[in-house]
Amino acid sequence: MTTLQDCRAMDAQDPLRPLRAHFSLPDGVIYLDGNSLGVAPKAAAARVAEVVEQEWTQGLIRSWNDAGWVHLPQRLGDQLAPLIGAGPGEVVCTDTTSINLYKVLSAALNIVRADAPGVDTPARTKVLSERSNFPTDLYIAEGLCHERGLELVLLEPEDIAAALQDDVAVLMLTHVNYRTGAMHDMAAITAAAHARGIVCVWDLAHSAGAVPVDLHADGADFVEWRASKSADFAVGCGYKYLNGGPGAPAFVWVHPRHAGRTDLPFMQPLSGWFGHAAPFAFTPEYQPAAGIRRFLCGTQPILSLSALQCGLDVFGAAQALGGMAALRAKSLALTDLFIALVEERCAGHGLGLATPRAHGARGSQVCLTKDEGAYAIVQALIARGVIGDFRKGDGARHPDILRFGFTPLYLGFEDVWHAVEHLRQVLESAEWQRPEFKQINAVT
Amino acid sequence: MTTLQDCRAMDAQDPLRPLRAHFSLPDGVIYLDGNSLGVAPKAAAARVAEVVEQEWTQGLIRSWNDAGWVHLPQRLGDQLAPLIGAGPGEVVCTDTTSINLYKVLSAALNIVRADAPGVDTPARTKVLSERSNFPTDLYIAEGLCHERGLELVLLEPEDIAAALQDDVAVLMLTHVNYRTGAMHDMAAITAAAHARGIVCVWDLAHSAGAVPVDLHADGADFVEWRASKSADFAVGCGYKYLNGGPGAPAFVWVHPRHAGRTDLPFMQPLSGWFGHAAPFAFTPEYQPAAGIRRFLCGTQPILSLSALQCGLDVFGAAQALGGMAALRAKSLALTDLFIALVEERCAGHGLGLATPRAHGARGSQVCLTKDEGAYAIVQALIARGVIGDFRKGDGARHPDILRFGFTPLYLGFEDVWHAVEHLRQVLESAEWQRPEFKQINAVT
Repeated sequence: MTTLQDCRAMDAQDPLRPLRAHFSLPDGVIYLDGNSLGVAPKAAAARVAEVVEQEWTQGLIRSWNDAGWVHLPQRLGDQLAPLIGAGPGEVVCTDTTSINLYKVLSAALNIVRADAPGVDTPARTKVLSERSNFPTDLYIAEGLCHERGLELVLLEPEDIAAALQDDVAVLMLTHVNYRTGAMHDMAAITAAAHARGIVCVWDLAHSAGAVPVDLHADGADFVEWRASKSADFAVGCGYKYLNGGPGAPAFVWVHPRHAGRTDLPFMQPLSGWFGHAAPFAFTPEYQPAAGIRRFLCGTQPILSLSALQCGLDVFGAAQALGGMAALRAKSLALTDLFIALVEERCAGHGLGLATPRAHGARGSQVCLTKDEGAYAIVQALIARGVIGDFRKGDGARHPDILRFGFTPLYLGFEDVWHAVEHLRQVLESAEWQRPEFKQINAVT
Repeated sequence: MTTLQDCRAMDAQDPLRPLRAHFSLPDGVIYLDGNSLGVAPKAAAARVAEVVEQEWTQGLIRSWNDAGWVHLPQRLGDQLAPLIGAGPGEVVCTDTTSINLYKVLSAALNIVRADAPGVDTPARTKVLSERSNFPTDLYIAEGLCHERGLELVLLEPEDIAAALQDDVAVLMLTHVNYRTGAMHDMAAITAAAHARGIVCVWDLAHSAGAVPVDLHADGADFVEWRASKSADFAVGCGYKYLNGGPGAPAFVWVHPRHAGRTDLPFMQPLSGWFGHAAPFAFTPEYQPAAGIRRFLCGTQPILSLSALQCGLDVFGAAQALGGMAALRAKSLALTDLFIALVEERCAGHGLGLATPRAHGARGSQVCLTKDEGAYAIVQALIARGVIGDFRKGDGARHPDILRFGFTPLYLGFEDVWHAVEHLRQVLESAEWQRPEFKQINAVT
């Protein structure tokens, strides 16, 4: 049996422990919801104050040049790139995940259309995704399929491989599932899709900053696209594991083989002025910028981008302590510990494990199931300061979920101990059955 | 001749003078660029700090409910609505102007397509706009026309009326021209367009908070659409006259007759989860929210939205002093004064006036032309603390522009005097011909 002393010893030996000091952790809270909204980096308050009081108030319009606002989406993109195996100049931080997904899914479909061989080949009329993909991804895909007369096919994960056929245009998946924490093998799936001529769009919302990602899985060598396991397009979220603040701008990555195409000026349809080759020439005709900058659209929210930078800065500090490999090792140790403690100390209450045990198939969260009361248990835990969240299910295949995210940047092993101890107490006292914990809030 | 003493007397009698105290005006600056980036409201620093240090740092995920983040786009929209003649529940503050324009232009085209009469009627294959419309508007329209096989027709303003024919689907105009400050008669043009079955999209980027706007020009009565002078769709900018901060979220308004249509679930194609009828039910199928909320897409940047609220709050204070009517009267007095002083004191230097003299055709800016040196003159003025901006032209019909925006919330008549005096000195000393003022910056 694991003890509290064991957990304290693990914290004492944790090489990443100094990173906790970069965050403002509220008193009395064990925060297991960094996969929904990350904790505030300590630097954020001062940085945002500087932007408001100096750059905006004093600098005014001059700060677009003098404070470098105009380059912020690319600069933050370059800072983020190493976390996802992207190169410099391949990522921009901008807009929202939903909007970036619209851009890249449109771009993927436009590429398929442009590259379609002659009429003898069966048309690619399907977009594949996972039924339990995050809903906004499905809504965006549904809208685009509706507009273009395509079919959105939603599959269970085990059915994806067999569905990669010549009638598929695009495969759109989220790398780590928001409900279960299950992680796809991105390179293997991408390779299988490419072999059938299918373009791959990956959502890294629950991956970036949480698990190692290698968008250039081919490495540096040029590989013919049909044989390539490098991704085509990716988007992700700034406010989860990147700790960029509430509603922080998202990011978008495009493989240079696609971003560099000059035959499709409207490859991405949100052709706003910040994606123009020369935005301040004010010419009436659109001409896309070279590379990833063409995936920008309008003027970006500078205050929110500035806070995101503080989140990304912490990963710079993490780099000196082993970077994503060290973060991944700690993340797996935290989630292993949580699973073990729940099984040791919360048995007999009908909890199930929705997250894969295999390390290679697990993100940085652990999801539990319970036939009855999942929502109320989460509320009872929140009342005790143990903040996880609830995700609604829709039947036996996708049950209600108690979701706990583990951010190795600021969580310790003792936190995991106390979280499970609170869970044990909530379950054993039937505290969760109090009426106040059954009241559904707007956002949970 | 107008004197400095006259200007001081006008300030002394200005009923809106107390509003200046709501802003942090930097020392040594006369700011005539509020039409590019508005000045910081004094409340912004404390409000943003509260969001970072309390709502995010302490409240974390709970603040989506407890601090009301989830309703911020609608709440700010309701606060903005009276400035543009919109009703409650008709506006949301969200995303960027470019993205909101994509939503509403798509929606307008989708409505035209859905309502198209039989094949005997000539197809509506054109989108009309103004050649000197703000470029991002044209880029967005160009992309949509490219995708849908439509023709984007760019006109000079005097040619618009004659072009309103049965082959036009949508008329997309910016109410106040960004280059010249010329203002369209929105109700008259809308009525003429509707009479020909053309849907109208208005960009209020240089109008909201600057000039009175009445999107419901029909008044409260229901008017058959073909006879209606109320607008169909509108978008606008949060960071200009609304003083919402750099890259502040934009806004979008849709007439309830369109927003309420249930036959077009993907009326606007950016069908993200915040526009869903029940975002937190996490259902895989999209179902749009009722009303304007369906024009939301992804998770919004809360820090930037919170700063925007401070800008909107000042208009609440302005309401007690006469509201938009009083602001408009002062705006016209400021721009009249600027034109008069330039003509009295800067004659003989080849300056021209690009902005209409007629009050009914003028926004809240004055634009001057000069055959040579417009950019350098603007730079020389900025070096003196008189901040306007330069907008590049492309020939005789659209010459280079020295652009000066006048925000009646914080500018005084003495400011106008000193601005013109600096301009006079720059011109008479040929100071603008110094080499350092000819260096082109990225953003101007």
